[in-house]
Amino acid sequence: MIIVMKPQAPRKDISEVVSLIESKGLTAHLSEGREVTIIGVVGDKNKLCNVNIQLMSSVDKIVPVTESYKLASKKFHPEPTSVIVGNTVIGPGTLTIMAGPCAVESEEQLLTIAREVKKAGAQFVRGGAYKPRTSPYSFQGLEEEGLKYMAAAKQETGLNTICEVVSREAIEAAVKYVDMIQIGARNMQNFQLLKEAGHSGKPVLLKRGLAATIDEWLNAAEYIISEGNPNVVLCERGIRTFETATRNTLDLSAVPVIKAKSHLPIIVDPSHATGVWDYVAPLAKAGVACGADGLMIEVHNDPEHALSDGPQSLTFKHFDELMQDMKAYIKLAGRTLQ
Amino acid sequence: MIIVMKPQAPRKDISEVVSLIESKGLTAHLSEGREVTIIGVVGDKNKLCNVNIQLMSSVDKIVPVTESYKLASKKFHPEPTSVIVGNTVIGPGTLTIMAGPCAVESEEQLLTIAREVKKAGAQFVRGGAYKPRTSPYSFQGLEEEGLKYMAAAKQETGLNTICEVVSREAIEAAVKYVDMIQIGARNMQNFQLLKEAGHSGKPVLLKRGLAATIDEWLNAAEYIISEGNPNVVLCERGIRTFETATRNTLDLSAVPVIKAKSHLPIIVDPSHATGVWDYVAPLAKAGVACGADGLMIEVHNDPEHALSDGPQSLTFKHFDELMQDMKAYIKLAGRTLQ
Amino acid sequence: MIIVMKPQAPRKDISEVVSLIESKGLTAHLSEGREVTIIGVVGDKNKLCNVNIQLMSSVDKIVPVTESYKLASKKFHPEPTSVIVGNTVIGPGTLTIMAGPCAVESEEQLLTIAREVKKAGAQFVRGGAYKPRTSPYSFQGLEEEGLKYMAAAKQETGLNTICEVVSREAIEAAVKYVDMIQIGARNMQNFQLLKEAGHSGKPVLLKRGLAATIDEWLNAAEYIISEGNPNVVLCERGIRTFETATRNTLDLSAVPVIKAKSHLPIIVDPSHATGVWDYVAPLAKAGVACGADGLMIEVHNDPEHALSDGPQSLTFKHFDELMQDMKAYIKLAGRTLQ
Amino acid sequence: MIIVMKPQAPRKDISEVVSLIESKGLTAHLSEGREVTIIGVVGDKNKLCNVNIQLMSSVDKIVPVTESYKLASKKFHPEPTSVIVGNTVIGPGTLTIMAGPCAVESEEQLLTIAREVKKAGAQFVRGGAYKPRTSPYSFQGLEEEGLKYMAAAKQETGLNTICEVVSREAIEAAVKYVDMIQIGARNMQNFQLLKEAGHSGKPVLLKRGLAATIDEWLNAAEYIISEGNPNVVLCERGIRTFETATRNTLDLSAVPVIKAKSHLPIIVDPSHATGVWDYVAPLAKAGVACGADGLMIEVHNDPEHALSDGPQSLTFKHFDELMQDMKAYIKLAGRTLQ
Repeated sequence: MIIVMKPQAPRKDISEVVSLIESKGLTAHLSEGREVTIIGVVGDKNKLCNVNIQLMSSVDKIVPVTESYKLASKKFHPEPTSVIVGNTVIGPGTLTIMAGPCAVESEEQLLTIAREVKKAGAQFVRGGAYKPRTSPYSFQGLEEEGLKYMAAAKQETGLNTICEVVSREAIEAAVKYVDMIQIGARNMQNFQLLKEAGHSGKPVLLKRGLAATIDEWLNAAEYIISEGNPNVVLCERGIRTFETATRNTLDLSAVPVIKAKSHLPIIVDPSHATGVWDYVAPLAKAGVACGADGLMIEVHNDPEHALSDGPQSLTFKHFDELMQDMKAYIKLAGRTLQ
Repeated sequence: MIIVMKPQAPRKDISEVVSLIESKGLTAHLSEGREVTIIGVVGDKNKLCNVNIQLMSSVDKIVPVTESYKLASKKFHPEPTSVIVGNTVIGPGTLTIMAGPCAVESEEQLLTIAREVKKAGAQFVRGGAYKPRTSPYSFQGLEEEGLKYMAAAKQETGLNTICEVVSREAIEAAVKYVDMIQIGARNMQNFQLLKEAGHSGKPVLLKRGLAATIDEWLNAAEYIISEGNPNVVLCERGIRTFETATRNTLDLSAVPVIKAKSHLPIIVDPSHATGVWDYVAPLAKAGVACGADGLMIEVHNDPEHALSDGPQSLTFKHFDELMQDMKAYIKLAGRTLQ
Repeated sequence: MIIVMKPQAPRKDISEVVSLIESKGLTAHLSEGREVTIIGVVGDKNKLCNVNIQLMSSVDKIVPVTESYKLASKKFHPEPTSVIVGNTVIGPGTLTIMAGPCAVESEEQLLTIAREVKKAGAQFVRGGAYKPRTSPYSFQGLEEEGLKYMAAAKQETGLNTICEVVSREAIEAAVKYVDMIQIGARNMQNFQLLKEAGHSGKPVLLKRGLAATIDEWLNAAEYIISEGNPNVVLCERGIRTFETATRNTLDLSAVPVIKAKSHLPIIVDPSHATGVWDYVAPLAKAGVACGADGLMIEVHNDPEHALSDGPQSLTFKHFDELMQDMKAYIKLAGRTLQ
Repeated sequence: MIIVMKPQAPRKDISEVVSLIESKGLTAHLSEGREVTIIGVVGDKNKLCNVNIQLMSSVDKIVPVTESYKLASKKFHPEPTSVIVGNTVIGPGTLTIMAGPCAVESEEQLLTIAREVKKAGAQFVRGGAYKPRTSPYSFQGLEEEGLKYMAAAKQETGLNTICEVVSREAIEAAVKYVDMIQIGARNMQNFQLLKEAGHSGKPVLLKRGLAATIDEWLNAAEYIISEGNPNVVLCERGIRTFETATRNTLDLSAVPVIKAKSHLPIIVDPSHATGVWDYVAPLAKAGVACGADGLMIEVHNDPEHALSDGPQSLTFKHFDELMQDMKAYIKLAGRTLQ
């Protein structure tokens, strides 16, 4: 931690800051510049957690030097992590495809879609049983009934299953039926839910919040890991910006940034990011090309009649074509579809 | 709802859209322009909820004409609503001050602060017992113990009390001790929590999410109201933008916008928005000047040692001065402190 | 300037950075922490301008300690500046109103508006003769003809005049006819134009760019001042965010932030910020309440037929009412209308 | 254009709007819904340019149906455009690489870099002779001297040359020495400069503004084309968002969006977007994978001593490796390096 003093800070104020630091068992290093004095603080900064140095006289600002997350950081865990779900390894060397409808609508619908995405090469079938919707009057999901269909889809196809959870009840139900749970963008800083996901015993897919910095996202992962669950996969799904041509702005730079800062796997969801099915294929390829460990793609048997997010869903034909096209990109990226 | 067809859409595609609309019992009005044809849809658009017209051939885009919220809308409830909490009326004609520490730290701390903010003219003491914190290693709140101190503060001072809730358990505890519950910015689209707040029987302060549009915010209010709880007060507390000189960007335009779109009261929180105590007073006055129904302000007995958000907290002296200064602004705005 | 080294940076890399700094005649102060070493650099950092320390081995990041602007900074000029235009003083103690149409449309229109805004209490008539428009097919302004009408309006009413400039030719013409020139939001980082404004001999109103941080804005002011023109007034006019209920998001926090960082006067333009006339009055009052030195407000004789930005313009009646309402706010803020 | 009336608009107000539309020679189509009436306007909307319908009684909002740009739109020019510069074709089927230093620093530097990027496979050498810099105290470029070095680099290597222009003088000088001129992000809405680029006789690379929507960007292109210069290539270089891990947020979705809306070629600049050399390679590959027609990449002989933007520049070795890696991606995308 670095403390920057205001220009011409009186010696007395500088001494007070130094005394405080030393009184907590830390060491202060002074650099006296022509204009300003800066004080480097060496030691465990948690010892300062109940003091607001920023409010002391003549203090201009505090500059943190180290990130607040540790378990999610590459600094203390340089090797990339693989998260294993059933017979699928999500991490370096592999490329994992999660595909399916935004919302589970019926058993038949889900089974039809699961069969098709399996045939096309997916490892996971996704499907929402609990839907966070902007308006209370929109379809909210089939809840536990939907989870049962997920279990049926797994039984028939052998695909892994993933479903978003929005509450403790949803987690308690989901762990009985699916292989991996998902925390959605709107709940990325629902810290209560993060802690509960940390106790769920299931691998967690953590979507980035619409307004979350990468730093906050890794802190959200830290909540899950620090509760004892190291099996966290990140998912970039677009951030909120001023641009309205796409639903959100897919931040593909997040892929190399996460690879530089964290050991956790990261996948990309171009369907929710763009909201337009026509843009999904080019951005899916781009996601593989920039180093993502997987993709989440919405596929629907009948997008024109989907209960949720039809405009961004691929038909079976389009999904199959995309999977064919992507094979060469996956190979180029040094990865294998499992 | 308006459907805009692509330029040169074949007659066949236009007919298909019209047939679909009419098959659902709605009426289609065609406007054939030189370049494009548009189709006005008249009737209950919920009848179209399981069709994605946007995916039909030659459809360019769908333009919604009416908002998805009804109960929160001024269109169907033109008179402004007053929310009554104990002996305080939040709404037109009054100005409500909620003041107190970011986090409840001890009974003594809370009582000291409650006495002082009461003396300075506040109607509510605020204080966090459940703290949503970016890092799992930051102080997370005293939980039920903190709520008990809130009840004690009420008992001694007669002030109304308000506390943020972050889970169903927190709501169940809070309703026993405090007068009003708060949904924080990070949970504004935690729809499960919104529904539970709708059943809590307590008035709800709904903070705007960091990346929430005003439309989404009113839809979040709709979740609470549609569960049977009409006592919702909105709170503008800054949105996330590219500017870093303040923690968030306080969007004071939201005050007149909300007044134009909704009948719900709205208050302003300049402390969380700016993150800097020095900017709180000018923006508090600005909030009153542009029509807010109240203010939420962080006050701390010892900001230099606050466990949370010290840099943005006012001292007793600064808060008292601000309250003195604001009296004339409150009067000018045609409002009274109760 | 502070250099943060990566965790476990080898001693050799640290020495290389230190040697480099010292070879340039600067001093390096080392703080060796448990996890990371930081190096404080003392001396004139311009000596390092042709070295990218960030690329040296084991360097994690560079943290600037001082701002890059000097002449616009309060640190080196603590007293607030007043900018004098004719008989109007823009700065502490006064409140300056600039009012008029977005675009000058005819001599008669401008004279009519000038008379009315003068009567209502404005000190400046504003009017665009050069209009930066998103589409090349929108009305682009009357150019020099419009400037002549500005001069006529001044002659008749005695009001000061201000007009946006968009090119060197526009500056050359404007200095012959108007009292103050304006650099618009879209040109805030048109550095060529800033330099030319610095040589114009006229006071400059510098609007904030739609995506400009306050730091960049003050650097833009620095361009003008460093060319020898200290008469710069800043104008907050809304930044671009995700919110669409208003055209831009008026950042009123910028007012106290500028007061904390700079000695330059700052005014607020609620008309362009919101794009909706109905929101102008509450935000104008808020601007005064939070410490602005003035306001720029669009007023039109016939908003329904305005060639540019009619929806955000006040009628004479609304402007007169606003000026009446604001008197008490101006007085409360300790300012006088001149 | 669609006019949406307020709920319960009186018949008289609706009639007035209809009369106005018809008085201008346009046709009005009414759709009377249960809640609101909408009016479709058919005909040339330019006839309404001096009326602000939005301000008429009971009008709620105006919804534009067609974009304001025509010449840049795919609707009226469905085939993709190729822009030819010397012996290079920028457009479908090809992949164009522009590489070089942020700033031209000396003849020797530029020649060295030009030779290396040619060898690695680039078609253009880029280099800034006029640098728009946030601070007036940063290096501003060698101006015409730098352009001469560009001409020398072309002469020796046969590469095409491109240089940013920031003023009419810069354009007048640049057309004498380089093959293509660039309008930078900060000048994307410097409409005067766009018009002058339209008269320059040179192909133009138009970078997206930091806060520009895709619609505004295409309108900026319209300025150039409508002055008679159809040779416009777009360049996505990152937009400004709240994320600070990268300098800007590269919006790769803009590539498929532009392909859907316009016939103009689009290239991607991952160097300026990210500001970090380490992220350039993955995002360059992603740009090719999502359909870009080319890439602009910063390469420097000695990034540690670059006068501008060293941290984002590739060394010769890294650039050469990237070009080797990209060959397979370029082939996969169905394109050829020329």
